[in-house]
Amino acid sequence: MSRSPEVTNDRPVAIIGAGLVGAGWAIAFARAGLAVRVYDANPDTAAAALPWAASQLDALHRHGLLEEAPQQIVARLTLAHSLAEAVDGAAYAQESVLERVDVKRRLMQDIDAVADETLVVGSSSSGIMASDFALDLAISPRVLIAHPVNPPYLVPVVELVPSRQTAPQTVAFADTLMRGIGQSVVHVRKEIEGFVLNRLQAALLREAWALQRDGIASCEDIDKTVRDGLGWRWSFMGPFETIDLNAPGGVADYAARLGPLYHSIARSRIGDGPWDEQLIARVEQDRRSQLPVDQLAARRDWREERLMEFAVARREAKRD
Amino acid sequence: MSRSPEVTNDRPVAIIGAGLVGAGWAIAFARAGLAVRVYDANPDTAAAALPWAASQLDALHRHGLLEEAPQQIVARLTLAHSLAEAVDGAAYAQESVLERVDVKRRLMQDIDAVADETLVVGSSSSGIMASDFALDLAISPRVLIAHPVNPPYLVPVVELVPSRQTAPQTVAFADTLMRGIGQSVVHVRKEIEGFVLNRLQAALLREAWALQRDGIASCEDIDKTVRDGLGWRWSFMGPFETIDLNAPGGVADYAARLGPLYHSIARSRIGDGPWDEQLIARVEQDRRSQLPVDQLAARRDWREERLMEFAVARREAKRD
Repeated sequence: MSRSPEVTNDRPVAIIGAGLVGAGWAIAFARAGLAVRVYDANPDTAAAALPWAASQLDALHRHGLLEEAPQQIVARLTLAHSLAEAVDGAAYAQESVLERVDVKRRLMQDIDAVADETLVVGSSSSGIMASDFALDLAISPRVLIAHPVNPPYLVPVVELVPSRQTAPQTVAFADTLMRGIGQSVVHVRKEIEGFVLNRLQAALLREAWALQRDGIASCEDIDKTVRDGLGWRWSFMGPFETIDLNAPGGVADYAARLGPLYHSIARSRIGDGPWDEQLIARVEQDRRSQLPVDQLAARRDWREERLMEFAVARREAKRD
Repeated sequence: MSRSPEVTNDRPVAIIGAGLVGAGWAIAFARAGLAVRVYDANPDTAAAALPWAASQLDALHRHGLLEEAPQQIVARLTLAHSLAEAVDGAAYAQESVLERVDVKRRLMQDIDAVADETLVVGSSSSGIMASDFALDLAISPRVLIAHPVNPPYLVPVVELVPSRQTAPQTVAFADTLMRGIGQSVVHVRKEIEGFVLNRLQAALLREAWALQRDGIASCEDIDKTVRDGLGWRWSFMGPFETIDLNAPGGVADYAARLGPLYHSIARSRIGDGPWDEQLIARVEQDRRSQLPVDQLAARRDWREERLMEFAVARREAKRD
């Protein structure tokens, strides 16, 4: 791989798949000053992505989260009318197509057919490993997972996960690129189902669902336990730093005190099966008593507003 | 039980055990306008609690988190020189003695001997159930768990957990009292090891430790995944609302899409044993590479400052 780890306006970024995730990535790259080409196999989806991005940029501007006028950022977004046009001369492509292994495998073959020998491809896959869809192609050493949280222009984490054929330089390139646009890079060193983020979420959710199932607490009370309790520290420290500071001697001291309790709690769930229809219906009913289904969309708007306020608060905290 | 669910300056709150947790509770009650009597079996501990509380109140004042002068709040704190003096005429006692079942059982017997027939007792126990130390006493119907997160004057959650002999009126009384001082009340409806908060923390930590053990990610990268990713939503929505908004049709739709993956992730950890010495040493080394042991105390001060900023931001968000 003979290329420098640089993305400039001469070498734009290609967005492949322009749904919610892809359009969110477009904002993140364009906000950082990069030229972005937006492509979707469905031209209507690609066309809708640009006005949507403009409206999100207006909201970011209202919250004081942009360093330039929204129009300047929108001006960096252009539509591409074919995959070949999107990646032509691009240094990096972020793919966010449907989360299905056959769809991703087909896309990698299509990209392989049109890409030059320097293009790096990041996949937004939230759980499927790159080794399941990006092996034995010319481009394989230059493909890796770059898994965001939605929306990537607000929540900074991105998980970088190489396949077993990804070259180290590709990981280094993606690390530089993602840091350059302000993301927080997590390196997942070995491929594993769900990567790190969804495995941690899965572990907490499994316990949460079991507590609801057993009548220990309601969904709302479990949510309160996190948002008014655990979430306070986790939102600026993470779980290891939290426990490291929670015992006089640090994390080993903490493990000696609480390890046996935590093992006992883990053992108590070993026999649990999958979430069955009855349990899903109960949790659905519990949530619907808090939020009717026709208010989900409005609540999502509320969530985006809170995330923007949170982004402002985090930025202020870092300036101190 | 013939008493009204009211705590007034005529009927103060007793703090029993004046270490970090008890002294933190003293601040939370006094800040809300209540008279607080502070008692510890070790007179030096009790004496040290008052100046410590004064210094914390000064910090809260600097962050704009108090509605009156710190001295006015400090003036509501008095030392009690015996358990009998502490609970004499008190409506409520919060006990925060050592987390050991024999110590708590002995304390309940001692309180039982001196309390009038209306005193309600909340225990700060973080995992031991009230049925393990507060049964078959005259006071048993008036004892429950009121488990805080440290420090309770900053992080609002409190878990209320009745024993099998706790009267419903006791839970109602504690609910009114805790809401009255601004805490966020979680009702744990059945006794279970670790209650809700530490069970959720345990589930996430088990996965986090396993990921570190298997070389998937470092402690720092796992912390980043939470503080720059999952923690953003959890800090204002909790896990159920998060997934309810993350699928077009709500939580049942989400379960249909991701339930099988999460069950598979859960199954992959069934064989895991307790954290052994080797693993604890590795995690300790990983954390110490981020933070030397002699900087733990300074980092705890940093944490308190961040929590205060977070409290300010949360208050602003609620005002919107």
